[in-house]
Amino acid sequence: MNANDAVQIDPKGRLRHLLTLNGLGRERIVGLLDRAAALRETWRDGELPPLLAGRTVMNLFFEDSTRTRTSFELAARRLGAAVINFDIARSSTNKGETLEDTLATLEAMEADAFIVRHKDNGTPARCAAHARRAAIVNAGDGNHAHPTQGLLDLLTIRDHKKDIEGLKVTICGDVRHSRVARSDIDGLAALGAGEIRICGPAALLPDRSEFPGCRIIEDFDTALAGSDVVIMLRLQKERMQDALGLAEADYFAAYGLTAARLARAREDALVMHPGPMNRGIEIADAVADGPQSVILEQVANGIFVRMAVLAALLADR
Amino acid sequence: MNANDAVQIDPKGRLRHLLTLNGLGRERIVGLLDRAAALRETWRDGELPPLLAGRTVMNLFFEDSTRTRTSFELAARRLGAAVINFDIARSSTNKGETLEDTLATLEAMEADAFIVRHKDNGTPARCAAHARRAAIVNAGDGNHAHPTQGLLDLLTIRDHKKDIEGLKVTICGDVRHSRVARSDIDGLAALGAGEIRICGPAALLPDRSEFPGCRIIEDFDTALAGSDVVIMLRLQKERMQDALGLAEADYFAAYGLTAARLARAREDALVMHPGPMNRGIEIADAVADGPQSVILEQVANGIFVRMAVLAALLADR
Amino acid sequence: MNANDAVQIDPKGRLRHLLTLNGLGRERIVGLLDRAAALRETWRDGELPPLLAGRTVMNLFFEDSTRTRTSFELAARRLGAAVINFDIARSSTNKGETLEDTLATLEAMEADAFIVRHKDNGTPARCAAHARRAAIVNAGDGNHAHPTQGLLDLLTIRDHKKDIEGLKVTICGDVRHSRVARSDIDGLAALGAGEIRICGPAALLPDRSEFPGCRIIEDFDTALAGSDVVIMLRLQKERMQDALGLAEADYFAAYGLTAARLARAREDALVMHPGPMNRGIEIADAVADGPQSVILEQVANGIFVRMAVLAALLADR
Repeated sequence: MNANDAVQIDPKGRLRHLLTLNGLGRERIVGLLDRAAALRETWRDGELPPLLAGRTVMNLFFEDSTRTRTSFELAARRLGAAVINFDIARSSTNKGETLEDTLATLEAMEADAFIVRHKDNGTPARCAAHARRAAIVNAGDGNHAHPTQGLLDLLTIRDHKKDIEGLKVTICGDVRHSRVARSDIDGLAALGAGEIRICGPAALLPDRSEFPGCRIIEDFDTALAGSDVVIMLRLQKERMQDALGLAEADYFAAYGLTAARLARAREDALVMHPGPMNRGIEIADAVADGPQSVILEQVANGIFVRMAVLAALLADR
Repeated sequence: MNANDAVQIDPKGRLRHLLTLNGLGRERIVGLLDRAAALRETWRDGELPPLLAGRTVMNLFFEDSTRTRTSFELAARRLGAAVINFDIARSSTNKGETLEDTLATLEAMEADAFIVRHKDNGTPARCAAHARRAAIVNAGDGNHAHPTQGLLDLLTIRDHKKDIEGLKVTICGDVRHSRVARSDIDGLAALGAGEIRICGPAALLPDRSEFPGCRIIEDFDTALAGSDVVIMLRLQKERMQDALGLAEADYFAAYGLTAARLARAREDALVMHPGPMNRGIEIADAVADGPQSVILEQVANGIFVRMAVLAALLADR
Repeated sequence: MNANDAVQIDPKGRLRHLLTLNGLGRERIVGLLDRAAALRETWRDGELPPLLAGRTVMNLFFEDSTRTRTSFELAARRLGAAVINFDIARSSTNKGETLEDTLATLEAMEADAFIVRHKDNGTPARCAAHARRAAIVNAGDGNHAHPTQGLLDLLTIRDHKKDIEGLKVTICGDVRHSRVARSDIDGLAALGAGEIRICGPAALLPDRSEFPGCRIIEDFDTALAGSDVVIMLRLQKERMQDALGLAEADYFAAYGLTAARLARAREDALVMHPGPMNRGIEIADAVADGPQSVILEQVANGIFVRMAVLAALLADR
C-alpha cells in the first residue's frame, strides 16, 4: 500500500474512495464481491432497492470510454441515483480552470460521487485528496489501476471456479501498459491465486521487479500450459507497430489465442477479455465466441460490482 | 416482404423488432396507430402509465439526428424507461470493435431495446439478426426505411382525413434517396391509399420498377392536381448541386411548394414535411406556416407512435 | 425596461420567461431569492417536493458551458423534471434550419421550458417571442444578461450581509463584455445597493452612459477602499492580449485581487467570482481560497435560484 492508496479508507475503517485494489485486503474485496452477487440476484428476481435515491453521481471521463461510463451510469441509475455525464471536452478545464477547481465546483453542486478516468496515473488519487465530502471511484488511470475491472474479473472467475485460491491465471498481452492487468494482479493476489503468469513480447512486459510474486513467461504456449484462467488484454494497434515493429499477423501467430492454443490450458479454463476485442489480433473468433469464453459475463458483472462499490461508498454512510 | 423484414415478427406472431413497414400488414399498423392515439389521449388527460418502468432503452445513432433521438428519448422516458444515449462517435466501434460486439456488450448490460440509425441500409436488420433478447427499432437506415416516421405520417393523415383508403397522396422531392418516402409509401399502400404520386426532378426519382403501384410524375403542378396530401421531402443542398447542377432558386421555381401551387391540390389538402425544413428551397414560408400545414402535428405525433412501438415491443412481453 | 424585457411578464403579472433582471422589480426579485432560500432549507432537511414532476426542461446551449448547464440540469431534476440536453452542435440548426423552426419543433415535443445560452444578445428574447407555451430562461446571451447568475450573487450576498441596501459593491474586470456584471448591476440596483463601483482597465470599461447610477473607477485600489463586496470577473485571455496588449503578470499587478489589496476593502468584505477562475490573473490563490471567499457558496446557491426560477415559471401555472 502506498501513500496514495491509504486515502481510500476513512479513519473508521470504511471505504471512503475506491482508487485501487492494492492494499484493499481480502476481506473487503470479498465483501464487495458478495454484495455484487447479492445485487445481481435481487435484480434478476425483480426490482432493486433504491439504495442511491437522492444521490448524484458524476462521470468525469477525461479519456473517452463509452462502455465503462455506460456501465457506471446504469449501475448508479438502477439503484436510484441521478447521473450527470460531465462533458470534459467542453468544460472549463479547457478554459484554464484547474482540476481542483472543477472538482470543488461540481462538489458544491452537491455531487456525492465522481467516477474519474484519466490518462495520467494518480489523477483519481489527486481528486480524492481534494474532495471534501464526495467519494471518488477510479474508472481507470494511466497504467496504474482499474479497480472495478479487477473486481468484475474476480467475480466472474469466482462464479465458475469454486475458489480463487490456488488457481493458475495467465494474463497475456501488453501488461506493461495495462491498468487492467495491474488491478487483476492485485485482486488475484489478495484472494490467494496459486500462480499468476504474465505473458507477452519482451517490449510489452513489465519490469521484473514490479511483480515479484508473478512468473513472467515470454512464450505463450508455455504460459498457457495448465492455466485455469486466461485473461487476454487488448493490444493497441498503434503500440504494436511502434513498440514491436510487428505486423498484425505476426502478433497473432505469437500471442493470439486460438482454439488450438487454448487446448494447452486446462480443459475447463476460462477465457476472459476486458474489451473491446481486436478479433484476429489478440483473440480468434472461435475462442471469443466459444464455450469457454465468459467475456459477456464480465460485462454483465461489471454493472453489479459497480453497484456494490457505489452502495458501499454512498448507501452505508 | 424480404428476408430481412421477416425477422421482425416472432414465431408467436408478435412484433419482435421494428425494421420496416414493408410487409408489416394493415392490421398491425392500424393497431400501432390506435395505440399511439390512445396514449396521446392519456397524456393529454394527465399522467401516462409507467409501461416501461425498469426497462433500458439505448439510442445507437451512427448518424446524427438530434430531433429523432430526442423524440425516441422522450417517448421512452415518459413511459418510465431509462434512456442511454450511446455516443458512437466516442465509442469502441471507433477502436476497431465490430458492430456485433458493441451490440452484444451493450445487451450484456441488460439493454431492452436499441434505437438504431445508420447511413447504411440494413444495419438495423443486422443488429436484429444478432440480438439475443433486445428489440431493435430502426430509426432510419440509408434510403431503406424509417418506419416510425411512416407511422407518424399515417397517424397525422388519419387525424384529419376520415380514412386513408382512397386518398391521393403526392410525395415530392428527392424520393430516390429518401427512407421517409419509402416508409410512407409502404404504410400508405398497406392502408389502401388510392393513388401515390412520386414527383421530383428526373435525377432524384427512383427507378420505375421499385414502385410499380405508384405514379411517377416529373411535373409538380400535374402531380399536385387533386391531391389530398402533399408530403414535401427535405432536399440536401449538397445533392442539389452535385446531382442536379441547379441553383436553389431554380429548384424552388420547379419543385418548391408555394401557396399558388398548393391551390392546385384539393382545398383541404394537408401539407407535410419530415423536417428539418429548408425554407425557400422545397417549401415557402406561407405554406410551411399556413393553415394547411400539419408539420408540427407530425412532430407531436412522433412521440406517441414511438411510445406505441416501444410498448408493443417491451411492455407486452 | 426595454421592449424585449416586457415580454417576460404575462398579462396577469406572472413571470412568463426570465430574460433579464432589468425591470423585473424589487418585489419579484426578493420573492425569487426567498423561494430559493426556502428550497435550500428543504433540500438540506431531506427531500424536495417534486414540483416539476411530469415537466420537460430542455437545455439549448449554443455556447458551451458545462457548469451552468449542469447547474440547471440538477435544479430541474431535483424538482422532478425530465431534462434533455439538446446537442446543438449536432442538430438541425447546423443543417440550415432556422432557430424558430428548431424551437417550434422541440416545443411540439411538449417541452415546458428552454434554457437558452447564446453568444448573441437577444437570442433568448427572440425565442420568447416565438414560444407558444414554453417558458424561456436566459442562461447568458452575449454581454446582455445572465439573470440567474445575478440572482445567485444576490442570494449569496444576502446570506452574509443583513441587507443589500446601502452596500458598497465593486465589480472588477472586463465589465464591458460581461453579462454577469450587467445582471449583477441590475439586481443590486433593484435591491438598493448603496454604491456600485465598476473597475477595470479603460479598454474594458463600459461606456459611461450605460450605467449612470454607477461609479466608474479605473484604479483598483481606489475602487476597493471601503467595499462590502468585491466581485471579480473572469478575464478571457484572448481579450487581454488583443484589447489590452498586456502580459498576464501586468494585468495581475494592476487588477489581480491579492490579500494585500483586499485589505483595502472592509474587513468583512465578501470575495466573489462567477467562475471559472483564472488563478494568478484576476485573483490570487490566497484570496480565492481565503476566509472571505464565498465562491463555492455562489455555485451551491446557483442550483437553488434556478430551482426557484423554474418553479415560478412552471409549477405555479
